[in-house]
Amino acid sequence: MIVYGRNPVGEALRGRRAHTVKDIWASGGAAREPWLEGVKVKLVSGEELERRCGSNAHQGICAEAGGYPYVGSEELLKVSGEPLLLALDQIVDPQNLGSICRTAECAGASGVIIPERRSADVTPAVCKASAGAVEHLRIAKTRNIADFLGDARERGYWCYGASTSAEAVPYDQPDYTGRVVLVLGSEGSGLRPRVAGACDQLIALGQHGQIQSLGVSAAAAALLYGILHGRSKGLDKAP
Amino acid sequence: MIVYGRNPVGEALRGRRAHTVKDIWASGGAAREPWLEGVKVKLVSGEELERRCGSNAHQGICAEAGGYPYVGSEELLKVSGEPLLLALDQIVDPQNLGSICRTAECAGASGVIIPERRSADVTPAVCKASAGAVEHLRIAKTRNIADFLGDARERGYWCYGASTSAEAVPYDQPDYTGRVVLVLGSEGSGLRPRVAGACDQLIALGQHGQIQSLGVSAAAAALLYGILHGRSKGLDKAP
Repeated sequence: MIVYGRNPVGEALRGRRAHTVKDIWASGGAAREPWLEGVKVKLVSGEELERRCGSNAHQGICAEAGGYPYVGSEELLKVSGEPLLLALDQIVDPQNLGSICRTAECAGASGVIIPERRSADVTPAVCKASAGAVEHLRIAKTRNIADFLGDARERGYWCYGASTSAEAVPYDQPDYTGRVVLVLGSEGSGLRPRVAGACDQLIALGQHGQIQSLGVSAAAAALLYGILHGRSKGLDKAP
Repeated sequence: MIVYGRNPVGEALRGRRAHTVKDIWASGGAAREPWLEGVKVKLVSGEELERRCGSNAHQGICAEAGGYPYVGSEELLKVSGEPLLLALDQIVDPQNLGSICRTAECAGASGVIIPERRSADVTPAVCKASAGAVEHLRIAKTRNIADFLGDARERGYWCYGASTSAEAVPYDQPDYTGRVVLVLGSEGSGLRPRVAGACDQLIALGQHGQIQSLGVSAAAAALLYGILHGRSKGLDKAP
């Protein structure tokens, strides 16, 4: 798989599939950047890069790496301690998936689960949109998000679904200590009923404007950091 | 100015420049959507729409509206009560500017200030990326963000700059009651020293991953909702 862009190539070189990175191609300017010191780079033209990437967003560099190293969904659930997982149901826009993965990695999420179908895959465009975060993040695929949430609950996870429905509580009410899955639905229509039904609790961000339509990647950022904040407060209260 | 896409045209029809919307063009499918009932629409082909918009992201509809109705920066500062303003220094990517405006509108921010130069303007692409939020949001331009923050402080605003520097306090420490400006710097390099120096306090989101590079629109979402949460807690504590 081709990885393109400065951050994606840089993170691929130090991430989970670093050992699979083979050739690196760069145009003159990018090849001289200090972070590539000691790395073997083939000098090529911008046109050649664009041809290899199928995109003009390469920033002068691309690399050939192995396929994206998805982990098993079982492996995600087996993490010890108090993991924070993110389940993304039917996020089809690569920009959104990449942006959410970037935020999840920065927020220290333990992993991301996406469905096998009706979801963006971790493509080169997603790697780019994630600023390379997917190279460090553990991402798993599941046949069915609702079933995954059922498995998670059996293992002591508490599943919070982001929702704008009337049953949802304000997102800053729960304390979010323990094992947590945050569930986000699709860009257009939110959580499907079966997925919402598989959650322990529905949570909502306040919508105080006219448009009532927060973007899913903004919602992910507000909720992930809200959960981290809730956990820290929950721990303050702990005996 | 051409506004394109379903949400942008819909919000333009009920937003701050609704009276300036003249012609609306739509392809067959979009023209029959229920929200356009009673609205005069000219039927055109997809190619004609793409030609008018200069983009293929029109979703079958576009409209001719007046220029974007920026407000004066003085007007933003004069809002009574406890406004929450957002100052964006050198956000050049239209997608980021649009996405931040969308979140700001949903979070109930009172307005957004951007610099006259080295910033994306409110273009049709920004309207689209904001899902039409810019039609309701009050956006002002200023020659100099640092000077604007000085004016704001004179009027009793407290200016919080998002920063990853060592002087920054965790963002969830302040209570954010009163008149607040949240200041965000550019995608690549954050706050410029003079802008950071014009803030009362620097605040930081925790970065718990490998990549240490939260996107600016994700940071905006986490901070805006964090500020709303801090305010609600601050009010709980008030006598």
